[in-house]
Amino acid sequence: MYHKSVTYLLQLTKDEINEFLNSFDTVLTDCDGVLWLNNNVIDKANLVMNRFRELGKKVFFITNNSSKSREEYAIKCKELNFKCDKEEIISSAYLAADYLKNCGFNKKVYIVGSTGITQELDNVGIKHTDVGPDVHCTTVPKLIEGIKLDQEIGAVIVGFDEHISFPKILKASSYLNNPDCLFVATNTDEQFPLNSEFIIPGTGTMVAAVQTCAGRKPHVVGKPNTYICEALVKEHNINPKRTLMIGDRCNTDILLGTRCGFQTLLVLTGVTTLNDVMEWKQSDSQDEQDLLPDVYLDKLGDLLPFLK
Amino acid sequence: MYHKSVTYLLQLTKDEINEFLNSFDTVLTDCDGVLWLNNNVIDKANLVMNRFRELGKKVFFITNNSSKSREEYAIKCKELNFKCDKEEIISSAYLAADYLKNCGFNKKVYIVGSTGITQELDNVGIKHTDVGPDVHCTTVPKLIEGIKLDQEIGAVIVGFDEHISFPKILKASSYLNNPDCLFVATNTDEQFPLNSEFIIPGTGTMVAAVQTCAGRKPHVVGKPNTYICEALVKEHNINPKRTLMIGDRCNTDILLGTRCGFQTLLVLTGVTTLNDVMEWKQSDSQDEQDLLPDVYLDKLGDLLPFLK
Repeated sequence: MYHKSVTYLLQLTKDEINEFLNSFDTVLTDCDGVLWLNNNVIDKANLVMNRFRELGKKVFFITNNSSKSREEYAIKCKELNFKCDKEEIISSAYLAADYLKNCGFNKKVYIVGSTGITQELDNVGIKHTDVGPDVHCTTVPKLIEGIKLDQEIGAVIVGFDEHISFPKILKASSYLNNPDCLFVATNTDEQFPLNSEFIIPGTGTMVAAVQTCAGRKPHVVGKPNTYICEALVKEHNINPKRTLMIGDRCNTDILLGTRCGFQTLLVLTGVTTLNDVMEWKQSDSQDEQDLLPDVYLDKLGDLLPFLK
Repeated sequence: MYHKSVTYLLQLTKDEINEFLNSFDTVLTDCDGVLWLNNNVIDKANLVMNRFRELGKKVFFITNNSSKSREEYAIKCKELNFKCDKEEIISSAYLAADYLKNCGFNKKVYIVGSTGITQELDNVGIKHTDVGPDVHCTTVPKLIEGIKLDQEIGAVIVGFDEHISFPKILKASSYLNNPDCLFVATNTDEQFPLNSEFIIPGTGTMVAAVQTCAGRKPHVVGKPNTYICEALVKEHNINPKRTLMIGDRCNTDILLGTRCGFQTLLVLTGVTTLNDVMEWKQSDSQDEQDLLPDVYLDKLGDLLPFLK
């Protein structure tokens, strides 16, 4: 079978690198692991992103993290000296609200998630339940006795929810028992990347719980689902062939790029290692070939000298 | 392909029914949906089970419910007039403890579950963590700061836990990040059978959450996993060919029987309907053929006239 080539960008000549930089006029970038780690900019990533804008390229910040709204992300970007408008933030909470709006949804949403989702639903005028703790502190029969299902609910959104609980899974699944109830997940990342002895549950964990109990699969709006591409083409008129997707995680960022026909750049400042890439490169599995980026760099800041 | 025949037992002649009743000397029966619903005996099921014992057959009560210990089940059986010794109860909590004992396990168990599991571990002298609520009431960074992983933990058991929470999933997954840590699930039933507007999360929901976050699959001891058969052959010397498995749920009870080479009897007082059976019967999928019982009855009590 065809084995895709993966190029280390700095091995190219200056002319070839210029050709690459002129081959796209839209830049999509993942955030955590590419631009910053927690609250620290990864070496000169902000200067590179700002330079792309100055060169007239459209720039979008794409994140599967559903816990912040676009407004909150725009504030974080500004604090870290990334030039950025709210409209350039594409978060999975925003996509979930955008998806329901485009469905013509006019009922109420039951949320397993946080204020990132409530704020985005408020922005598009969709009603929703409250978020926060919903703790089980009685017996199961008494719990059920105390629940009154809201007949107005017509969709369940599952995002990151550190207050995931038995009552929440029970309510979400009971609403989803109605086949007309829409089921949307912000993303399915299993865990948060963290170099420590702790494994932090990601949204995929909450989605797996609700999906298993409800016996239904959600419509996933976050990476690597191609809904993002549909939304960007429709609302911002981007040309996928002249779009670069930058990421640190091949099974979300780069796979999204492969599926959408974007060009893809992997940076090695996050989850995926060069060893991972070299292993997939040898593989005869199409699924693993689809994880391969076109080009890679140690870090995004390495592009800066070529953008002057 | 070969389509299995499924016989309605009462269509047979009296002699054929007698032949069937003489073809097994061990009876394994599911509990909920076969013997009782909540705290009500299903029409004469206790008289049939007691009569099997009087006829000299070995009897075992097999349940995936991990929330009660064997002692507690034996008490429930007696209250509902089923003759029964503790040793005849095979619950998934007992099987989980039995499995670790047979592994020569001598470390400590982190439990996502309830007192059914703690009691069974106590019975075999295996140390374990406490069960009950473990609520997340701070931020994620502060939560992590406050956790000290117990170096003595060498296994995680996941059973039914109505206090499933973010801290529990985080801790279980962090322990499981050590590949030497054993991972045992009592069962994977997705939801509780209940004729109501509510969908009650079953153990499969808790298992899906931990499994997704940990990126590992558990060793499942409950039905339809064949570990039960190994345990019964080893500890009670049963002969699979002369064993009858009675159940109301084909994807656990009857599938277990098929996999273990037991004879199988479906009763229609629980989850699986005759329509389900007829659909699978037409199917060319081996997976669906494996769900088919040898014989079926409307209810277990229908056997009583033939046992006099």
